[in-house]
Amino acid sequence: MHQLRKPYLLFLGDVDLKSDAKTAFGLRDWCSADVMGEWALPACTVTLELPRHSPAHAASLGAGSLVIGVAAVGGVLPPHWLPELEAALRAGLDIVSGLHSRLTSFPSLVQAAQLGGGKLHDVRHSDLVFPAGSGRKRSGQRVLTVGTDCALGKKYTALALTQALSQRGVPATFRATGQTGIMIAGSGVAVDAVIADFIAGAAEALSPDNAPEHWDVIEGQGALFHPAYAGVTLGLLHGSQPDALVLCHDPSRSTIEGYPHCPIPDLQQAIDRYLEAARLTNPAVRCAGISINSSTLTDAQWSDYASDVAQRLQLPVVDPLRGGVDALAEALLAQ
Amino acid sequence: MHQLRKPYLLFLGDVDLKSDAKTAFGLRDWCSADVMGEWALPACTVTLELPRHSPAHAASLGAGSLVIGVAAVGGVLPPHWLPELEAALRAGLDIVSGLHSRLTSFPSLVQAAQLGGGKLHDVRHSDLVFPAGSGRKRSGQRVLTVGTDCALGKKYTALALTQALSQRGVPATFRATGQTGIMIAGSGVAVDAVIADFIAGAAEALSPDNAPEHWDVIEGQGALFHPAYAGVTLGLLHGSQPDALVLCHDPSRSTIEGYPHCPIPDLQQAIDRYLEAARLTNPAVRCAGISINSSTLTDAQWSDYASDVAQRLQLPVVDPLRGGVDALAEALLAQ
Repeated sequence: MHQLRKPYLLFLGDVDLKSDAKTAFGLRDWCSADVMGEWALPACTVTLELPRHSPAHAASLGAGSLVIGVAAVGGVLPPHWLPELEAALRAGLDIVSGLHSRLTSFPSLVQAAQLGGGKLHDVRHSDLVFPAGSGRKRSGQRVLTVGTDCALGKKYTALALTQALSQRGVPATFRATGQTGIMIAGSGVAVDAVIADFIAGAAEALSPDNAPEHWDVIEGQGALFHPAYAGVTLGLLHGSQPDALVLCHDPSRSTIEGYPHCPIPDLQQAIDRYLEAARLTNPAVRCAGISINSSTLTDAQWSDYASDVAQRLQLPVVDPLRGGVDALAEALLAQ
Repeated sequence: MHQLRKPYLLFLGDVDLKSDAKTAFGLRDWCSADVMGEWALPACTVTLELPRHSPAHAASLGAGSLVIGVAAVGGVLPPHWLPELEAALRAGLDIVSGLHSRLTSFPSLVQAAQLGGGKLHDVRHSDLVFPAGSGRKRSGQRVLTVGTDCALGKKYTALALTQALSQRGVPATFRATGQTGIMIAGSGVAVDAVIADFIAGAAEALSPDNAPEHWDVIEGQGALFHPAYAGVTLGLLHGSQPDALVLCHDPSRSTIEGYPHCPIPDLQQAIDRYLEAARLTNPAVRCAGISINSSTLTDAQWSDYASDVAQRLQLPVVDPLRGGVDALAEALLAQ
């Protein structure tokens, strides 16, 4: 499991599109207390409006890691970034990267890390071997965000729900299963990167036994209806053995993104399929509510849509960006 | 994808239990035409009753690979086997291993392979990157063996079915997804060893477009009801996009082996769940029949059991070791 060293200095490379710095903005918004500042190459035109610190200066202020907060073309690490990264390592920082290129494949980074005593974290990859899933019931409560597709708010919903529980004084931990989530949480497993045999085992390791009143809020991945990634989704579902599911959906999609021949099932069908699968490791699992990515709807459309779905499914329906997830938190705690 | 070089010389190391040489016996029985002989260390007490050839002699007779046909303790390669393996490599043979230990982790084997020009095949591992699954419908026919648990005859059933189809003049190819299957077929992918994101993609690559009347008979893995391995099973199911399933079952088991808290569903439920999941990539999928591992039943018990199940499910019920799989082949071709 990745264990990252905070606080972070966010590195923006030399990007000139805000959308290429999505990771950095996500970290600024979701773990601001852990972010010390930003740094970039002179050609960079994007800013997070945070204090600018050189890696060496950040290290002297107590920073733990320089985090690559941008996606380069093709997920490749551009060689002209290396001098800045080497400087950060020599100053004693760790480096955290979600790029396809592995930091450890650059000899100059490995060498600089040895000099500075820091670590190289490739959070997109997982070289760990996990035990096979045991299916053993663990103590504590768990909720998993699941989806009708990829990339429609499972991470965001889980983060918001963790916050809403904490605000109620309920002990809750966000459990990250993807690279940005791992950077935000400072730990986690990229479950889609583990060896297929260990998906459920990795999910079990991610949310170990805990106090009876504690909630693990686990970031979901993929979708049970996705022709490429359903295996990851099912293994994560079984290993998480959730007490509750939150179904995430984007009403503007009728087919799986990039798979126009794969229809998205209706919400009740989706809930039924997820619950059926989840019962294997937790027969008491229930669906606590629906989280909608309603960015394509007007306020009036959203209001109609939300009440229609709530009425039809008899479940709380929220959009984390439109009124928050309080209703989900209440539903979790109601039982 | 692994591509192995036949014919094989089967290496038995120094085992003294037949059960530890299961792989070698499987190869002798399922691809006898590809097996040139056996070889072992002097301390070995097990024999396949095949001609004994030294690796150098086998190479001179045209052998392609020395196959490690035994499971050593803990899946580890004992260092005292290395001289024989090095000799085989120097003679120009490839080496094929299903052990946990990677052949490529032994510098002396890497060096000997370079000298002899042969290859090291670790069929338990997969270092390949596959594209993500596409879900695109492929030409040709596909049948996948699925199970109510692991290790109850999915490989055996697939091999027998491939043979039965071929005997009827139907073009059919066994597609291997596990290490012993790969050795038998000479090619395949260990789907449980690929990166989780690529399970379905690997299964798609394994059974590419083919002639309309051709059948790929795909070896299943795991079980949809297995708390550790269901993710692999689902990804393989989606990527295989089978036209037909054969459900494999062992009536002596009521719970998943090693997981006494996980009941095995009844056969109709199991069929329903597999078909429901398989429809995602092939809405026309059907269950063609049931393959039973009836080794714990007497002849009379088997006869009663088989007719009861056949009656109840209205499907052909076979045990490949008790009367063969002709009824399954007929059922496949009936539509």
